[in-house]
Amino acid sequence: MRATPSPGRVGDVRRQNLALILTGLLSNGQATRAQLAAESGLTKASVSSLVADLIDAGLVQESSVTRDGERGRPGTGIILNPARGALGAEINVDYLAVGVLDFTGQLRFHETLERHNRASRPGEVFTLLVTMARRAADAAQAAGIELLGGGLTVPGLVDTERDVLINAPNLGWAGVGLSAELQKLLPGSRFGVTLSNEANSAALAELWFGHGAMFHGARFKDYLYLSGEVGVGGGLVIGSELFAGPHGHAGEIGHMVVHPDGPRCTCGGHGCLEKFAGQHAIFLAAGIGGESTVAQTAHLLRSLAEGNVRATAAVEQAGHYLGVAVASAARLTNVPAVVLGGHFAVLEPWLGPALRRSLANYAPGLIPDGNIAFSRLREPAALMGAAGSSVRNVLGRSYELIS
Amino acid sequence: MRATPSPGRVGDVRRQNLALILTGLLSNGQATRAQLAAESGLTKASVSSLVADLIDAGLVQESSVTRDGERGRPGTGIILNPARGALGAEINVDYLAVGVLDFTGQLRFHETLERHNRASRPGEVFTLLVTMARRAADAAQAAGIELLGGGLTVPGLVDTERDVLINAPNLGWAGVGLSAELQKLLPGSRFGVTLSNEANSAALAELWFGHGAMFHGARFKDYLYLSGEVGVGGGLVIGSELFAGPHGHAGEIGHMVVHPDGPRCTCGGHGCLEKFAGQHAIFLAAGIGGESTVAQTAHLLRSLAEGNVRATAAVEQAGHYLGVAVASAARLTNVPAVVLGGHFAVLEPWLGPALRRSLANYAPGLIPDGNIAFSRLREPAALMGAAGSSVRNVLGRSYELIS
Repeated sequence: MRATPSPGRVGDVRRQNLALILTGLLSNGQATRAQLAAESGLTKASVSSLVADLIDAGLVQESSVTRDGERGRPGTGIILNPARGALGAEINVDYLAVGVLDFTGQLRFHETLERHNRASRPGEVFTLLVTMARRAADAAQAAGIELLGGGLTVPGLVDTERDVLINAPNLGWAGVGLSAELQKLLPGSRFGVTLSNEANSAALAELWFGHGAMFHGARFKDYLYLSGEVGVGGGLVIGSELFAGPHGHAGEIGHMVVHPDGPRCTCGGHGCLEKFAGQHAIFLAAGIGGESTVAQTAHLLRSLAEGNVRATAAVEQAGHYLGVAVASAARLTNVPAVVLGGHFAVLEPWLGPALRRSLANYAPGLIPDGNIAFSRLREPAALMGAAGSSVRNVLGRSYELIS
Repeated sequence: MRATPSPGRVGDVRRQNLALILTGLLSNGQATRAQLAAESGLTKASVSSLVADLIDAGLVQESSVTRDGERGRPGTGIILNPARGALGAEINVDYLAVGVLDFTGQLRFHETLERHNRASRPGEVFTLLVTMARRAADAAQAAGIELLGGGLTVPGLVDTERDVLINAPNLGWAGVGLSAELQKLLPGSRFGVTLSNEANSAALAELWFGHGAMFHGARFKDYLYLSGEVGVGGGLVIGSELFAGPHGHAGEIGHMVVHPDGPRCTCGGHGCLEKFAGQHAIFLAAGIGGESTVAQTAHLLRSLAEGNVRATAAVEQAGHYLGVAVASAARLTNVPAVVLGGHFAVLEPWLGPALRRSLANYAPGLIPDGNIAFSRLREPAALMGAAGSSVRNVLGRSYELIS
């Protein structure tokens, strides 16, 4: 849901300057007024005035700063207000999840409910998710965090303008309008709840909180993100932004064709990556049955640890085909790094070497070994990305909170 | 070679306004001063003053305009000056070519020399190309066209900042510095000769003079361009601009992996598209030998016309694997259209149906049949793109010609 920006009392130039200050804080975590002035090119007087407005609006607060290697008394730093936050919510094929992300990027509450949503109707799933979202909101309130907006992320193509889930083959859902449901997740919130694709959100979480984050050395600003779930989702990050493509649906790496004689896929195609590297495909190849993904994953990890030949071959096959897709994607887009999340991260010890061998075979020299990274964010990645988008949306419209 | 813009006497705002006028003329071919004012948002007085400067600089000229459905006396139109132009030059695996493109987008001179450059050293090839370029310059002079700049396009990765051919596997050239050679192609020209990748230039030619051009209805502003040569080159056009990728080397569609068990490629990888759809691969699969590409192509077309089974199967196999690559590329980038040039365009009657079947198999519904187009520009496409880039470069620096 997108509210149109209200003109308010704040002029265009001041809006831009507010954005400069907040972008500086998002990148650096904390900064003194002097540092904000130096980075933004604004005068110290301007920065002080803007910060005063942002403190009044509850978006930032003061904190004491001591920095290594600097002399003199500790300065007064500015940080984003940890008492403001956004709701993150996720519907996935075999779980529902909610979380509370505060403005400093900390996940302060997180709840997951394992559940087979593929067999369920949207209404049924949303009834559960609304209950979970209410618990998250209660937890936020108990922790003194005001939720200003939120994000719901789903494993499928979304129309973010009209709040429609266009198609989620692994859920069996298509053409589901979600405006009313989004509103129910966080009733009365100032900035509403926005809809996003799960892999795209996880890719952004990696950018903001993982391998793309400043405190990790800003290593990756151009990378391919692949998330192993029941299927395989993806996101293409170029110049530290999600590359959405001309119609907003770029990054469908799970449906790149990695073997022209491969099996039929839920997307209607054949030989897609997710038929070799998705969780279901790996469990199938490893001969691991069972009802619950958690149990199957535990079984797989046990088998791998024991050196079981079939399990090892299944994961190595996934790594091999991941290499085919990454080689093709890097040839096409010139993106020189790859980050693997979701179940790929859990399988790193077995998947990593197979992926590296595959890349050396299909695109030697294209992606240096050091540019292959595994996500450390684990399961909450996607909802952290969805909530993080909401935080950025709120901060981008900070002028609406300045009276 | 890039000269740094000189500050000159023209201020920033006027530079921007000059660019507005010239962009309008590039898009529409011709326009009256009133139309240019309406499109640019400038006053008629400003437009008249800018046009006067551009006429003095020799970049535009007046022409009489009559428009269907408009009453009154014919207006005076403004067109880009057909007596100004750029040199286009191309080194390819089995030919050299030069051409003269005037500012209105007409190819006024074109010469091709069939030749195996794979076995040649760069110096030897450039000696020939410089001679050809001189003939093109003479032809331009004879036609009263002043060449202000030029573009050289090559089948490999290029570093346009340093004028280096990084790698052209099908030529067997790597790490070749070309600054001096570029200068020799058009000695003393005002804006120099720039270096480009052949498939990228052909993709831009398609945008400016082919399926992306306004007079074709502006159908495609987002498309994948694939050029069949000895290898397979590509370009990704997004929002009517070439998508270069974070390091300038995007669009290597010929080296996307279309069969993981496919043969070794010149790039060092395996199963690349060009091992199935490049000219050499098709001739090999069709059992057509011979020394000359022209003779082999004629042989292939004769065999196809006669319904020869092996030739037909070879081209259908190429179409099949083109479908695999296009499906994967469209999934990843969300680009909804594809334009096929080079020898793919020549093979359209046999290649088209196979490609459509393949896309229906691998990515049903993703690319509508109407969004699969074959280039009509034929062989000069790449050098038209290279020369067209030079024309745009000159027009973008028009202020340097205004004294």
